[in-house]
Amino acid sequence: MYLTRTLHRSLQQQPDQIVTIFRGRQRTYREFCGRVARLAGALQALGMQRGDRVGILALNSDRYLEYAMAAWWGGGVLNPVNVRWSVPEVVFSMDDCDTGILVIDDQFLPMAEGIRGTAKRAPVLIHAGDGDAPAGMHSYERLIAESAPVPDARRGGDDLAIVMYTGGTTGFPKGVMQTHGSLWCGCLQRMADTPPLRGGRVLHTNPFFHIAAMVRVLNQFLAGEVHVIMPSFEPREMLETIERERINELALVPTMIQLLINHPDLAKRDLGSVRRLGYGASAISAAVLEQTMEKLPGVDFSHSYGMTESMIVTTNPPENHSPAARAKGLHLSAGRAGIGIDVKIVDADGNEVPRGTVGEILVRSAGVTPGYWNRPEETAKALRDGWLHTGDGAYMNEQGYIFIVDRIKDMIVSGGENVYSAEVENVIGRHPAVASSAVIGVPHEQWGEAVHAVIVLKSGMQASENEIREHCRAHIAGYKCPKTVEFRQSLPLSGAGKILKRDLRAPHWEGKSRAVN
Amino acid sequence: MYLTRTLHRSLQQQPDQIVTIFRGRQRTYREFCGRVARLAGALQALGMQRGDRVGILALNSDRYLEYAMAAWWGGGVLNPVNVRWSVPEVVFSMDDCDTGILVIDDQFLPMAEGIRGTAKRAPVLIHAGDGDAPAGMHSYERLIAESAPVPDARRGGDDLAIVMYTGGTTGFPKGVMQTHGSLWCGCLQRMADTPPLRGGRVLHTNPFFHIAAMVRVLNQFLAGEVHVIMPSFEPREMLETIERERINELALVPTMIQLLINHPDLAKRDLGSVRRLGYGASAISAAVLEQTMEKLPGVDFSHSYGMTESMIVTTNPPENHSPAARAKGLHLSAGRAGIGIDVKIVDADGNEVPRGTVGEILVRSAGVTPGYWNRPEETAKALRDGWLHTGDGAYMNEQGYIFIVDRIKDMIVSGGENVYSAEVENVIGRHPAVASSAVIGVPHEQWGEAVHAVIVLKSGMQASENEIREHCRAHIAGYKCPKTVEFRQSLPLSGAGKILKRDLRAPHWEGKSRAVN
Repeated sequence: MYLTRTLHRSLQQQPDQIVTIFRGRQRTYREFCGRVARLAGALQALGMQRGDRVGILALNSDRYLEYAMAAWWGGGVLNPVNVRWSVPEVVFSMDDCDTGILVIDDQFLPMAEGIRGTAKRAPVLIHAGDGDAPAGMHSYERLIAESAPVPDARRGGDDLAIVMYTGGTTGFPKGVMQTHGSLWCGCLQRMADTPPLRGGRVLHTNPFFHIAAMVRVLNQFLAGEVHVIMPSFEPREMLETIERERINELALVPTMIQLLINHPDLAKRDLGSVRRLGYGASAISAAVLEQTMEKLPGVDFSHSYGMTESMIVTTNPPENHSPAARAKGLHLSAGRAGIGIDVKIVDADGNEVPRGTVGEILVRSAGVTPGYWNRPEETAKALRDGWLHTGDGAYMNEQGYIFIVDRIKDMIVSGGENVYSAEVENVIGRHPAVASSAVIGVPHEQWGEAVHAVIVLKSGMQASENEIREHCRAHIAGYKCPKTVEFRQSLPLSGAGKILKRDLRAPHWEGKSRAVN
Repeated sequence: MYLTRTLHRSLQQQPDQIVTIFRGRQRTYREFCGRVARLAGALQALGMQRGDRVGILALNSDRYLEYAMAAWWGGGVLNPVNVRWSVPEVVFSMDDCDTGILVIDDQFLPMAEGIRGTAKRAPVLIHAGDGDAPAGMHSYERLIAESAPVPDARRGGDDLAIVMYTGGTTGFPKGVMQTHGSLWCGCLQRMADTPPLRGGRVLHTNPFFHIAAMVRVLNQFLAGEVHVIMPSFEPREMLETIERERINELALVPTMIQLLINHPDLAKRDLGSVRRLGYGASAISAAVLEQTMEKLPGVDFSHSYGMTESMIVTTNPPENHSPAARAKGLHLSAGRAGIGIDVKIVDADGNEVPRGTVGEILVRSAGVTPGYWNRPEETAKALRDGWLHTGDGAYMNEQGYIFIVDRIKDMIVSGGENVYSAEVENVIGRHPAVASSAVIGVPHEQWGEAVHAVIVLKSGMQASENEIREHCRAHIAGYKCPKTVEFRQSLPLSGAGKILKRDLRAPHWEGKSRAVN
C-alpha cells in the first residue's frame, strides 16, 4: 500500500489518458509521471531524505498534485500548509515538524521572506510559477527540466505519508499524521461504499491542504480518472469550468453550494454533465437542498462526515435526500458508518448510549491517524483503546444514522473551516486591555457558524470592537477572527471556575434544533 | 481490519435484514450474529484457543458461513477442507496445520471414522445436521442452543484468518495462509474495482472451501447484503433458485455456464433478475459467450483471474465482452490489474518482457498470502522480493490486459516448438460438435512431446478424430494440431471447476521420471 502505486498502474494501462486539467493545461499520465520522477530527483538533490517533511504553500494546481506525488516518489512526507494562515502560523507548523523544503506559488510570495526570516531552519524555497524564480529560490519548472528521473522510493504501509495541521484545543495547531496505509485503506473503504464514477471528471475546488480534498485526490488517482483543478473556489469560474470540462462530480461545502446556485451565471451555463454532488463540513438546510435539486435536476447528493484524524467516517446517501426522506429529516443526518468503519456514541464514562441519546462520537478504522506529530499527550487523549474521540456530540437512530447536535470540544465550524476557540482566545488575551474572553460559534446564514467573542476588559481600560478585530487579524488567519464582539462585565462561571460557554451560546441558538451548524 | 467487523456494522445498521437464505431457511443479521456468538463460545469450550485451527468438511450451507464467522469471533483460524478429497488427503491437511475441531455434515459422515482413526490428533467432531448427532459427535444445533454468547475476540490485521489447501499440482497440498488484513484488503480492492450491487442477492454455487467463493462471501458480508446458498452446483436447482430468490449476481466457471444454458429447464425459468455473471478459472469461448448472452440478455459478464495465494488479481470488464470487443479477441483476456494490485510479466531471469511477449505472471498486492503454512522453502520459492510467482504464462497488451496462454509447466514442447494448450483448445472448441476439451502433452519418440486432445462431444453429436484434426489444421499451424484424439464422456474437474490435466496426463507419463520432455 504505497500511494505512488496508483501511478504505476495507470502507466501500465493508460499512459496516454489525461490525468490533470488546470486552466486548459492538460497532462497525460505518461507526462505527469515523467515530471514526478524528475521532481523527486530534484527534491532528493535538494536534501530530502527518506521520511523528511517537505511543504507546499500554494493554491490548488496541477503542480500541487505533481509535488505531492514527487514527495512520496522520492521518499518524503508531505506537509501541505494551510493557505489561510499568517506567517507565524505557517512558521509554527513548519518548525513543529521540521519541514526543510517549501514550494510556494505567486500568491504567497509576499510571505516568503517572513517565513525564511523567522523559521528555526530556513527552508529551501521552490517557486511554483511560470516566470523566472525570485532571487534565492529555485524554479519548479527548471528543477524538473534539469533533473534526471529517479526510481520510486516505494515507502508504504506504516510509513508516514502526510502531516496535516489542524487547530488545537490547547491553542496551538497540531500535526495529524497519516501513513500510506491509513490513507490507502481510508480511500479504499470510501470507494467500496461510494464507487468512483467510470470516466469520472472531478472538479477540485476545495483546498488541497484539507483532508476532504486530499481524499478526493487519492480516490481519483486510485481509480485512474481525471482531476480538473481550480486554484480556489470562485462561483463564476466554477460554473464555466463545469460546462467546458463536462464535470460529473463536485465536492462542496453548503456555503459554496449556496453561492453557486444563487450566482447570476447559473442559468447561462450547461451543468447537465453533473451527476454527483458530495458535500461536507456541515449539514445542508432543506431550503438550500430543495433549491439546489431544482436547479441541478438528476444530481445525486451525499453528505460525508469525517475529519483530518479519521478521513471519511459516515456517509448520508442520495436516497436520504429525497422528498420523502426530507419529510422525516433524514437529510440532516451525517450518515452512517461506512464499510470498514466502527462508529459508536458513548457517554462521559465511555459506555455506549441507547439509540436517540446524545453522546460523543467515537471512531475506529484503518483510516484513523496513528496520532499527532510529537504530541504523545494529545495523542493519548484523542486515541483511547483504539477509538478516536471526535469531540462531536450526536445521537444515532435505529438504522445507525447519526445526527450531530453539539460539539463537545470547543470548536467552531465557519464556512467549512475548523476554528478552535482556545486559539482565538489566546490571541485576544494578548491584547493589553483584555481581562478574559470566551469565543463561541453563533448561527450565520452564509457561513453556518460565525466566530463571536465575549470579552471582559480590565478595569479602567478600553478597547473597541474594531481594535479587537484588527489585533486578531495581525496574528491569525482572517477566518479565525471574530466577526462580532460583545463586551460584558463578567463571564458565567461553573463551580469549578470554568467558563460556561453553553450559557453564552444559548440565547444565540434559541429556537434551533441543534447547537451547531 | 477484522472480518467479524462486517457483522457489527450490519447489527448496528440493519439487524432485521436477511443475511442467509438456504433452501428456504432465512436468518436475519440479528439471528445470525446471535448464533455466531454462541457457537464461538461453544468452540472455546471445546478447546479452541486464540490462533487454533478449526476445520469444516461440508457442502455449502448457511451453517458453513456461521461456522466461519464463529471461528473468527472466537479467535480461531478457519481450515475449510476440500470436499473432493479422500480421507488420506483430508487427514494430511488436518495433520499439516494441526486442526483440532472438525465440523462435518451428513454428506461426509462416512469419512468421519477414517479421519478420526488416522489423524495424528483425533479431532473433536461436530455434526452439522438437523437430526441427532451420531455417537461421539457434538450436535451443531445443540452446541448453539446450550452455549452462552462470548464477546468478539477481535483478532485482526496480521493475525492468521484462514489456511486453504491448494491442489497437488506440485505434489503434496500446501496450506495457503491468509490473514484478516490480507483478506480484508483483497476484498476492498475488489469492491473498489467492481462495486457491490445495492440490494445484491448473490447465489453461491461454488464450494466455500475455494478462495473464489470465499472472496464473494466476504464481499457480501462487507457490503451487508444477502447470501443465497446452494449445497453445490446443480443446474436444475440453480435455475429454480434464481427465479425464486430473484438472484441478481452469479459466479460460475465456464463449464458450469455451458451446463446451465444447455439445460432443458432454462426456457421455463424467469432469469430476468440476473444482472451480473462473473466467471473464472478459465477464459470463455466466443461461442459459449454468444450463446449465453443471447439467452441471458442484459447481463454484464466479467472474468476474474486469481488464485488462493493472491485472491483476485485481474478483471476483464463487461465492455470487453461486447461484439466489437469480441471481434478483437478481448473477451479472451483474463483482464488487467485491479486497484491496488501490481502485475508484471517477466522472463526466466525476472526481467519484465515487452508487451506481447509471453512470460510468467508476477503479482504484488496487500491481498497476497504471507506464505504457505510451515513451508518456508516453498514460500521462498513462490514469494520473491514481495512478488508472487504465479506459474502462469501470459502476455500483456498495450492497455495492460493480460492473455493467459498456459500454465508454464503445462506447456507442451513438440519438436522444439512451444505449444500453448489454451490456443489449441480454443480452436477445438469452435468445432460445432465439441462441448469441451483438454489438450496435453504426451511422450513421443520423435518429437519429445506430442499434442494430445481429450474431447467431450455435445450430447447426440458426432465427430471423428480426423474431422477434429482437419478442423484444427484449418486454423492453426500443423505442429500445434493434435497428433492424437481421444473422446470421453466427461473431463476430471477440480473443486474450482478447473480441468485436472494432471489426471489426464498421468497414465501417459507413468513410469517416466518427469512429466514433460
